Amino acid sequence: MKAEILSIGSELVLGELVDTNAAYISERLRGIGVQVGFHTTVGDAEEDLCRALGAACERADLVVATGGLGPTRDDITRQAVARLCGVALELDEKALEEIRALFKSRTREMPERNKVQALFPHGARVIRNEVGTAPGFCIAHGRSEIITMPGVPSEMKRMLESWVLPYVREKIPDAEVIVTRDLRCFGVPESELGEKLHDLMDPTRNPYVATQASQAVITLRIVARAASERDAVPLLNETAEELRRRIGSPIFGEGRYGLEIGVADLLDRTGMTLAVAESCTGGLIGHWLTNVPGISKHLLEDVVAYSNRAKSEILGVPSELIERVGAVSEEVARAMAEGVRARAGADLGLSTTGIAGPGGATEGKPVGLVYVAVTSSRGTTCEKLHRWGDREQIKDRSAKGALDLLRRELLKLAEG
Amino acid sequence: MKAEILSIGSELVLGELVDTNAAYISERLRGIGVQVGFHTTVGDAEEDLCRALGAACERADLVVATGGLGPTRDDITRQAVARLCGVALELDEKALEEIRALFKSRTREMPERNKVQALFPHGARVIRNEVGTAPGFCIAHGRSEIITMPGVPSEMKRMLESWVLPYVREKIPDAEVIVTRDLRCFGVPESELGEKLHDLMDPTRNPYVATQASQAVITLRIVARAASERDAVPLLNETAEELRRRIGSPIFGEGRYGLEIGVADLLDRTGMTLAVAESCTGGLIGHWLTNVPGISKHLLEDVVAYSNRAKSEILGVPSELIERVGAVSEEVARAMAEGVRARAGADLGLSTTGIAGPGGATEGKPVGLVYVAVTSSRGTTCEKLHRWGDREQIKDRSAKGALDLLRRELLKLAEG
Repeated sequence: MKAEILSIGSELVLGELVDTNAAYISERLRGIGVQVGFHTTVGDAEEDLCRALGAACERADLVVATGGLGPTRDDITRQAVARLCGVALELDEKALEEIRALFKSRTREMPERNKVQALFPHGARVIRNEVGTAPGFCIAHGRSEIITMPGVPSEMKRMLESWVLPYVREKIPDAEVIVTRDLRCFGVPESELGEKLHDLMDPTRNPYVATQASQAVITLRIVARAASERDAVPLLNETAEELRRRIGSPIFGEGRYGLEIGVADLLDRTGMTLAVAESCTGGLIGHWLTNVPGISKHLLEDVVAYSNRAKSEILGVPSELIERVGAVSEEVARAMAEGVRARAGADLGLSTTGIAGPGGATEGKPVGLVYVAVTSSRGTTCEKLHRWGDREQIKDRSAKGALDLLRRELLKLAEG
Repeated sequence: MKAEILSIGSELVLGELVDTNAAYISERLRGIGVQVGFHTTVGDAEEDLCRALGAACERADLVVATGGLGPTRDDITRQAVARLCGVALELDEKALEEIRALFKSRTREMPERNKVQALFPHGARVIRNEVGTAPGFCIAHGRSEIITMPGVPSEMKRMLESWVLPYVREKIPDAEVIVTRDLRCFGVPESELGEKLHDLMDPTRNPYVATQASQAVITLRIVARAASERDAVPLLNETAEELRRRIGSPIFGEGRYGLEIGVADLLDRTGMTLAVAESCTGGLIGHWLTNVPGISKHLLEDVVAYSNRAKSEILGVPSELIERVGAVSEEVARAMAEGVRARAGADLGLSTTGIAGPGGATEGKPVGLVYVAVTSSRGTTCEKLHRWGDREQIKDRSAKGALDLLRRELLKLAEG
C-alpha cells in the first residue's frame, strides 16, 4: 500500500509553524507496513487543496490529511474533499451531539459556528475525536481512500493511534511491519561504535542497527522487519542483547531515556542519597535530576556555588586552596564533591567546576576545560574534560559527563 | 512571484527527521515579497523527484529545492534536474577546485566520490557553498526557475541569506516586503491582550499585531508591509511604542529574548548581586540565569535546598517553622529568600517552594501550589501561584513566575 501525507494550513505554508505531523504519521504508517512516497503542504485555499488532494489520489492508495477541520471560515478541508468527490456536505447528528457534549463537559455552551464541524461529505465515515471538537472522516475517491484528521498534534496522534492505524492495518494484514527499539549510550565515540557494530549495521540484515548522535548521547536504533509486532520482539531482544554484550556499560537505557533516569534508577536500587555542588553547570544537573518524579527521596541538596565565597563557606573548600590552584582545578573539584557530601550527610557527592565561556579563559585554562568529581564510600574520583561549543553546549556536555561519572560510580557500588 | 518548496530526502519522507527547512525558506521568501503556495517532500527516488519537480514548475515561477546534493549514490537531485531539463551533467572545474580546497582546509584529501558534487546540469549557474562541500545551482525550466541548495540546515541558511534571497529580490525589486518584529511579555492572559489590542490585531491594518503563546510567554508579533525593509522600520517602531504604552511592564524584551535576559540586563543596570534558594524548581532558575554570559558578576550562589535539613542548615529557615507551617508555605518562601540573601551577602534574594507533583500533595496543598518570594532593601514580597500541567511544566511556569517577580522588583529598584 502506497500513501501520501497532506498537511493543510496557511500557517504551515507561510513558514510560521514547522509541520511535525507529517513525519510522525509517516513513521507510524511505516511501522504497519505502509510506504509513504510524498508529503505535501498546502494553504487554506480551496482551489489549491482540491488540486493537491486530486494529485495525491492519483499517486497513492491512501491519502492521510491533517488540518483544516476547525470551525472558522479558513477551515476548508471538508468542502474541498466534498468538491473533489462531487458530493454534498451533510449534517451528522451523532457527531453534533458529541461536539455539544464536549463543550458541556468543559461547562460551556457550544458556539453556533462549531456546528460546521458536524458536516461531512455524503458517504463519509465519521472518525470520533476523543479529545477535541474536530472529528475526522474517511471517504473513498476513485481507487484511493482519503482520511482526514485534525491538525492539533495531540488530537491527531490520539485519532491516529486509536482508530486510523488499526483501520489501515486491517486492510493489509499480511504486510511486513517495521518495529524499532532504541538503546541509548554515552561516552563512546560514534566511530568506535561503527567499528564494533559494523556487521550489525548492514541495512540488508534483519534486524539492522543504525546510530544517531544528538547532544553527545548516541541512540542505537534496532530496526526489525517481521510479519507482526509480536514476531518482531524476539528479533529485537536478540540484537539488544548482542549490543549490550559488545558495548557494555556505556548503554544507560532505552527509549527516550536520559542519563538522569539511569542515575535515578540506580539511586533507587542502592537506596543511596546524593548531594551536588555545581559551578560551571549552574544548576543544570539539579534541574535534570528534579525532572524525575520521586527524586526527593535521594537528592538532598544541590549547591550552585558560583562565587568563591560560596565554595568556601557552604562547601568548606579552603580559600587558600582556591587562591593557590584556582577554582577550575582537580583539587577544587574534589574538595567541592567531598564538601557537599559531608555538609549534607549524603552517601554520594558530585561536583563540577570549569569554564563555560565565552569569557573566563586564562593561560593553560581554555574555555571548555571542566573537572567533574564524584565521592562515595569508595573514595573520590575526578575526571578532566575538554568540551567544545558555545556556553550552553559546554554546560550540557559537562552536566552529562558528571551524571555519567556518577552513574558509573553507582554501578560499581551496586555490584558491591 | 509564486514559489514552491521541495524538500528531498528519504529520511524526511520516512518520518525519521522533521523538515524544518521548508518553513524557514517560506518565511524568508515571504519577507522579500514572494508568495509560497506549496511544500512538497519527496524521497531519494529519481522518478518521484522528477515528477515532483515537473509538477512544481507547472504551478510556480520559482522552485526552491533542498537536499540530495551529497556525494553518495542516493543523492540524486542533480540527475533529476538534468533529466527534467533534458540536458547532460557537466563537470565545473572551479567548483571542483573549491571542494578540494575545503577538504584541504580541514587537512584531508578529497575522497574520489566527492567529485560528483562538481557535476551540474548543462546551462546551470553554480551557487557557492561557503561552509560545506555541496554547491547549489540554479537553472531555468520553461517559464520557471529551479534553485537547489544542500539539505543541511546551516549550509542551506548561509546560501539562502548570502546568495538566493538577494538574487530573487533583484527580479522583483518592487514587490511589497513583509517585515516582522516580536515583543515578548509575561503575566498577562492572552484574552486580556486580545481586548487591549483589538484594533491593532485586524490583519487588514498595516502593520497589524498577532499574538502567540508558548510556555506561558506571549509573543506579540508586529507584521508590516512596505516597499522595502527600510520603509518598514518607522511602521514597526510606531506600533512597538503603542504596544509598550498599552501593555507596559509585562513586556520584558524583544526577539527570542527570555525572562532571564531581562533580569540579567536589569542586574547590569543596577549593578546588584543576587542569591537564589530553590526548592520545587530544582535548579532551573540557576540553569537559565547561568546561560547568560557574564552573569557571574551578579549571581553569587543558588542553593537547591530539596531537603528540610538543607533549608535549615544553609538558609537558616528555623526547623520549627517548617514543622509548624510546612515547607510549602508563604512563611518558608520568605525565610528562604531572606536566608539566602543574608548568607551570601547579596543585594537580592529570590526563592521558590512548591509541589511539582505528581506526588507530594496534601490536604489544602494541591500539586501546582507554589510560593515565590523576593527580598531586597525594599523588603520582602511573596506571591502564591497555582500552576497546572505535568512536573516539568509546573517547574517551568514556577521558575518563570519567580524570575518575573524578580524582574518587577528590579524595575522598582532601578527607578529608585
